[in-house]
Amino acid sequence: MQPIQSVAWSADGSAVTILDQRCLPSREVYRELRTVDDVCSAITTLSVRGAPAIGVTAAMGLSLALSDDAQELTTARQSLRIAADQLRATRPTAVNLAWALDRVLRRSDAATNVSGLRRVLRDEASRILAEDRAMCRRIGEHGASLIDQGSRILTHCNTGALATAGIGTALAAIYVAKSQGKRLEVYADETRPLLQGSRLTAWELDRSGIQVTVLVDGAAAALMRSGRVDLCIVGADRIAANGDVANKIGTYSLAVAAYYHGIPFYVAAPWSTFDPSTPSGGKITIEERSADEIRRGFGAQTAPDEARIFNPAFDVTPSELITAIISDRGIHRPPYDFRHLIP
Amino acid sequence: MQPIQSVAWSADGSAVTILDQRCLPSREVYRELRTVDDVCSAITTLSVRGAPAIGVTAAMGLSLALSDDAQELTTARQSLRIAADQLRATRPTAVNLAWALDRVLRRSDAATNVSGLRRVLRDEASRILAEDRAMCRRIGEHGASLIDQGSRILTHCNTGALATAGIGTALAAIYVAKSQGKRLEVYADETRPLLQGSRLTAWELDRSGIQVTVLVDGAAAALMRSGRVDLCIVGADRIAANGDVANKIGTYSLAVAAYYHGIPFYVAAPWSTFDPSTPSGGKITIEERSADEIRRGFGAQTAPDEARIFNPAFDVTPSELITAIISDRGIHRPPYDFRHLIP
Repeated sequence: MQPIQSVAWSADGSAVTILDQRCLPSREVYRELRTVDDVCSAITTLSVRGAPAIGVTAAMGLSLALSDDAQELTTARQSLRIAADQLRATRPTAVNLAWALDRVLRRSDAATNVSGLRRVLRDEASRILAEDRAMCRRIGEHGASLIDQGSRILTHCNTGALATAGIGTALAAIYVAKSQGKRLEVYADETRPLLQGSRLTAWELDRSGIQVTVLVDGAAAALMRSGRVDLCIVGADRIAANGDVANKIGTYSLAVAAYYHGIPFYVAAPWSTFDPSTPSGGKITIEERSADEIRRGFGAQTAPDEARIFNPAFDVTPSELITAIISDRGIHRPPYDFRHLIP
Repeated sequence: MQPIQSVAWSADGSAVTILDQRCLPSREVYRELRTVDDVCSAITTLSVRGAPAIGVTAAMGLSLALSDDAQELTTARQSLRIAADQLRATRPTAVNLAWALDRVLRRSDAATNVSGLRRVLRDEASRILAEDRAMCRRIGEHGASLIDQGSRILTHCNTGALATAGIGTALAAIYVAKSQGKRLEVYADETRPLLQGSRLTAWELDRSGIQVTVLVDGAAAALMRSGRVDLCIVGADRIAANGDVANKIGTYSLAVAAYYHGIPFYVAAPWSTFDPSTPSGGKITIEERSADEIRRGFGAQTAPDEARIFNPAFDVTPSELITAIISDRGIHRPPYDFRHLIP
């Protein structure tokens, strides 16, 4: 079964269709975004999430900026700039978002009339969408080569079709391996505090006919000890020049446990995640998120207001714990050296 | 500041007063239990939890079995047996519960009239309460000797005043160290799925004036790597003859991370937790709990109904990861050998 598509053009091409992730895992609700405001709201409310998916959605959303009656090129360009600023402001730290918007805007400079502009916006957004899908597919193909028949795989957070416009990054390897006829069993950490593992990864794997078992993050090491994990595969938010990986909090704990049990630990990420300007993980600033994710994560009071909260969004896994890094360009093995990347 | 008391005789001695743990951390509510039914309900609804606290509460509850107008010894004994069966059934697997009830019943055999019976019930329950408090105090004193001035301590689950009639087991070491004037900083894993760390440990430490910081279980390894943990201390549900320790799920993950970072890992537990008849951790049966703790732990749907759930209540930490085991009889160092325990 094909993984779901979290973002696509609507059937008649006049809107952007997204799967509303706020409704998961209870309900599978698709929404048609018809205006830039709709797109902004979908991004800010986390109906769409995952850096690649956000970038693609914003690029596609830009094509909704020109009203049908916009005749004048100058006016149209002005609407476009306003829309781009509005979209850019939805998630100010998302690198893919700014990158995708800038790319479409740059392309649109060459248009000489409004209908040409309209065409360029749509074509460039479609190109970004297609490239994201192809990138996911390539990561999946490289990654699948590391997955044997009958593998039992442990993953963390959500790195699948819900985080990209394609079949994901770490989960892409699982989807491709499955499509090659490999029998698989996947374990998904629930991934506190926001539960992307239990809410999203478990949902999309199950939806694609892949057997998935959810566990609390603290149970992963015990699962490994019981002999039920053959390999771990996770995503990455940033990869330093020496191969250190920043990823969702809990990744490092998993990597240490995998190392202790002699279980291979793989990281899968697009080429755009590699950052040659960051020499090592120690140089990556870790965002601390709201204490309320721990204190009232589910509407209930789960910790006293007086207690301090340590809630880092990410942690850094040092390269010595990583068996290999999978990108759309291939499989990278230690010693890692990404100082001289060709973009 | 003195830690709270989760169970005690009421001021006039006619009832058992408990701190209702279901209301924590939002509200500190004490309830007077006046009948055996009240006590049973407090145990089954988890208003009282923690093996030692349950045992003490049940023993005290037995003294409420005799109605004021019970005149006949035979009738009184019959009421007592019915009450004991009713209390025993509240948590059938709790070893301390059965042990405490049997001990009071055995003592009551010698009574020759109803007022004597009444006195024996009350005296024996008070003795069990006092012994539990003394046991906690001794564990705390031994444990505190391992805690230096300025220590930063990571703990898991709840092993404090809320789990015992005294000042706890692992947390007892922290309370005693604090009372010795040591400056301390405590980190508490939130402890999924039931959040005893964030709901209970954080609450009782804060209530006693000890600075506490809560983190998700997956962040513990990253915290260790950042150099902010000097030692770990946890409780135990069962300790095998070779020193392997069964404890709340997530303990093993913590022990592996502590080992990897060279951080001492201590286990604190009463002597009654040591089980010479279990040769090693591999022989300990691990209870699997309801999938709904993961799927709908907080009233929300947090995982799809279709996903399988792996929800073990405990894990086993092998003795080679444990720096020392602290009991009310002292500090036990490797190689551990508890085969020939004197009860």
